[in-house]
Amino acid sequence: MNIVPDWIKSYRRDLLPGDITASLIVTVMLIPQSLAYAMLAGLPPEIGLYASVLPLVAYALLGTSMTLAVGPVAVASLMTASALAPLAAPGSPEYIALAITLSMLSGAMLLVFGVLRLGFLAYFLSHPVISGFITGSAILITISQLKHIFGVQASSGDVLTTVFDIATRLPDANPATTLIGVLTLGFLFFARKALGQLLQKAGIPAATAALLGRLAPMVAVILSIAAVSQLDLANTAGVSIVGTVPEGLPALQFLVPDGNDLANLWLPALLISLVGFVESVSVAQSLALKRQQKINPDRELLGLGAANIASAVSGGYPVTGGFARSVVNFSAGANTPLAGVFSAVLMAVVIANLTGLFYNLPQAVLSATIIVAVTSLIDIKTIKETWQYDRADAVSLLATLVGVVVLGVEAGVILGVALSLAALVWRSSHPHIAVVGRVPGTEHFRNIKRHKVETLPNLLAMRVDESLFFANAALVQGKIESLVAADANIKFVLLVCPAVNQIDSTALEALTQLQSSLEAKGIKFMLAEVKGPVMDRLQPTELGHKLEGLIFLSAHDAFIYVERHHEAALKPV
Amino acid sequence: MNIVPDWIKSYRRDLLPGDITASLIVTVMLIPQSLAYAMLAGLPPEIGLYASVLPLVAYALLGTSMTLAVGPVAVASLMTASALAPLAAPGSPEYIALAITLSMLSGAMLLVFGVLRLGFLAYFLSHPVISGFITGSAILITISQLKHIFGVQASSGDVLTTVFDIATRLPDANPATTLIGVLTLGFLFFARKALGQLLQKAGIPAATAALLGRLAPMVAVILSIAAVSQLDLANTAGVSIVGTVPEGLPALQFLVPDGNDLANLWLPALLISLVGFVESVSVAQSLALKRQQKINPDRELLGLGAANIASAVSGGYPVTGGFARSVVNFSAGANTPLAGVFSAVLMAVVIANLTGLFYNLPQAVLSATIIVAVTSLIDIKTIKETWQYDRADAVSLLATLVGVVVLGVEAGVILGVALSLAALVWRSSHPHIAVVGRVPGTEHFRNIKRHKVETLPNLLAMRVDESLFFANAALVQGKIESLVAADANIKFVLLVCPAVNQIDSTALEALTQLQSSLEAKGIKFMLAEVKGPVMDRLQPTELGHKLEGLIFLSAHDAFIYVERHHEAALKPV
Repeated sequence: MNIVPDWIKSYRRDLLPGDITASLIVTVMLIPQSLAYAMLAGLPPEIGLYASVLPLVAYALLGTSMTLAVGPVAVASLMTASALAPLAAPGSPEYIALAITLSMLSGAMLLVFGVLRLGFLAYFLSHPVISGFITGSAILITISQLKHIFGVQASSGDVLTTVFDIATRLPDANPATTLIGVLTLGFLFFARKALGQLLQKAGIPAATAALLGRLAPMVAVILSIAAVSQLDLANTAGVSIVGTVPEGLPALQFLVPDGNDLANLWLPALLISLVGFVESVSVAQSLALKRQQKINPDRELLGLGAANIASAVSGGYPVTGGFARSVVNFSAGANTPLAGVFSAVLMAVVIANLTGLFYNLPQAVLSATIIVAVTSLIDIKTIKETWQYDRADAVSLLATLVGVVVLGVEAGVILGVALSLAALVWRSSHPHIAVVGRVPGTEHFRNIKRHKVETLPNLLAMRVDESLFFANAALVQGKIESLVAADANIKFVLLVCPAVNQIDSTALEALTQLQSSLEAKGIKFMLAEVKGPVMDRLQPTELGHKLEGLIFLSAHDAFIYVERHHEAALKPV
Repeated sequence: MNIVPDWIKSYRRDLLPGDITASLIVTVMLIPQSLAYAMLAGLPPEIGLYASVLPLVAYALLGTSMTLAVGPVAVASLMTASALAPLAAPGSPEYIALAITLSMLSGAMLLVFGVLRLGFLAYFLSHPVISGFITGSAILITISQLKHIFGVQASSGDVLTTVFDIATRLPDANPATTLIGVLTLGFLFFARKALGQLLQKAGIPAATAALLGRLAPMVAVILSIAAVSQLDLANTAGVSIVGTVPEGLPALQFLVPDGNDLANLWLPALLISLVGFVESVSVAQSLALKRQQKINPDRELLGLGAANIASAVSGGYPVTGGFARSVVNFSAGANTPLAGVFSAVLMAVVIANLTGLFYNLPQAVLSATIIVAVTSLIDIKTIKETWQYDRADAVSLLATLVGVVVLGVEAGVILGVALSLAALVWRSSHPHIAVVGRVPGTEHFRNIKRHKVETLPNLLAMRVDESLFFANAALVQGKIESLVAADANIKFVLLVCPAVNQIDSTALEALTQLQSSLEAKGIKFMLAEVKGPVMDRLQPTELGHKLEGLIFLSAHDAFIYVERHHEAALKPV
């Protein structure tokens, strides 16, 4: 791996305008989002700002996506809150220290996975699990933010209690807060759904119109700060505001987690790493494909790992590649990660000089920003499509979704992964077994139930559509034995193995038993279309010796063997 | 299901002599074993006797094996001891109550699995895991019994401490106990290994000689009781004896486990049920095969479940079908489960009248019985064979073995199962992908690396030897994309799917993406040999529509399509 990234070596001046424009637009999105997501994570606003500087630079140096926008994101913030809530009081110094440690651990794990090239681990999170997880998280986040919209107290325990608290305390809602919250929500939804079309009708190009819509949160931030400052709403109307955000860049520090932190945080750190990695890679991949670029998953692990370590070192919390900002970065013309570096510089300028401006920012506006951002992640279409295509996948999706909402993010995602694995084992243990015959005039063998095929009365030819291993060996053996028991004409049993990629030792024993019991009944057991690697291991075994001359290249060859053998048997001696 | 078992309805008088002989011989084996295994389980001797009456009758009524001998067995006894040791003092009333509850829970689970026809669950314990588990348990049991052989104290904690305790305290060994222990061990090993051959040389038929060898433990029991009684070794030489065994049949009771018991015992009960079921079914199956009989795994669950409930009701502990006694029962001529009923009656007679005879039985003799029984379960041959056939299976086996010895029976078996599942997922996530070509003169397509085949310069034909699903979808997609990127001539990509039994929604999305990205490069994506069930689900999807006319019955058809298409493209318009 080169120390200097390729994009720096091959940088051309004509790429600069795109990178600068994109960085400006992304920064304007990033400021309200980093404040809002820090609030969602239970952290003071400055922690979100800190997580939006060095991580961007670290990713630019090690990542492989040209357009991924790294920083605080909604789902990782929710996961941070849910991991730390049992351990310390939100916003307390201990809580902040734990968030930094979580980022450090998560970064270290990603780096280790990257060095060991374990990028494939992320693929154990199936799309249905990821989709159910994201939709469930979005619902959970929305519910958690409602209290800020109305300015009421609500327990942050289980979701039912929270909903109940908000519903019963709605009469005590703070009117000014509610007004700000609902207006902002309305404005942001309008900006997202309709503003683009209106602007297009006014003659603005579609791409520009869409980008302008993305700036709406910043407009809401500026207008609401102005309103609260002018009318002194914090003091006169009890509107909750962000308050003092410390000015100045954070001191760098390197926290080494102790054993206690490790015990408490390894699982959330692992889940945040994996979920963040999967989300990030899928965004990066889909954007790269549009420009015929490539991303390298193992290098992405290093990039995101470095970003999280950088976040921890500069007092931030877990970060990853965000969906919405990356899309905006791409559409705004970002050509290289230099756009991210520029964003980092702009954020550093804001932190060093301008945090005072956020004093009067209402929390309700941040919550509205969060709600509008996450409701776009609620994906009903995928639920419908998955339901139509594959019920088992749909069940994983819904179980993960409900699990996340009812049991929490960690339990939900673990439930989803467990269900995916269980489905895998279940399917493998119930292999599709077809009795096959020859398609007339060809050398092909097909399911006798689906095709008009030729069969021989003394031959049972079966195809098992699965590797043979411990979870299905006994079932396959039993199935063949019962088919043989049902037809006294059978003198040959042929197992066609184009789908058998493996015969483990449990299955080897089952086949050996099967061969013996068939032999005892005067029935010949034969194999066909055994794959090379399977054959190599089968040959030196007891079964391999017994089957010498009875393993055929194709089912067709075995068919001919049985025909000849049968004719020979019919001839008088 | 009929209430009266078939074997009763079709019972013939000529079956009786075999059943009576077998029941006598099995009972003579069962008496010392039930005392010994109760000791191994940390229970008073009478609990072992109680577990040897009603369970045999219950199994006779519901089970499907004609020759399985149910009752206390070594491995389930070890598992009982290891489950209960942390919860109560061995031999205490609470401990006994927990053992009874464990049997009740285990029986209830087996019954539920039987009613739900979940017999297949047992197949998740692969042969290597079972083999490693049995060998590990045998080693653990042997080590646990050494203290009784030498009459020394030893902690029953982890295995290293136990071995260390015994080694350091060997100088304080009780001489009379050691003499009895070592003599019995020697006699029993001799009876097992050499007695049969000696008797054969003396003109006794092989089968009878082998059966006589099985009676050796009873001979050791009788001789040692006589010696201890005559020489008053318990009082004069400090030999540990069984002592008073309560006389009379147990009162029947029905214990309903409370929530606390459930929380403590569900996992051990589940493991005892599954391990016991697997062992029992494999013994029953192998014996049934020898006489062309059949056993029904789901009915076996009911039989063993009822046996365990019956054990609990009559004050016993977990039981299952034992290997050694079943083989003896079979060889001694048992024709039906009536042999088991007779054994139960004989045991009841012993319990009602003869328990006083066991007062002077030395514990060292029981330990020697256990050691000789379990060392025959240590299976080095399977370890060697598995190592040669399949390294991954050998690793599961050894990990389970070492896990059982070092971490204990529960952790060991869980580790083994986890490793088996991990291996399954790992293999599925690294599918074998072969670039294929046509075997000249045939319609068959084979790996270009293994066969001399014809290829077309503009066609990349690949066979994926695995179902496409979340754990391998991205890898397959990446592999194809990189092969395409490496060869600019490619205009057609053909995926041959004889081994693809499933395309889950994650893989569907990956293939949809792949098709789009290939289309963008002017490359046609084609499928061949798609299985019926996979095709049915693929057709109505977006990908299915895009691939219309590009899904071929065989790779050969696709090959011809590409040839024609290519020729057509070469012709001037």
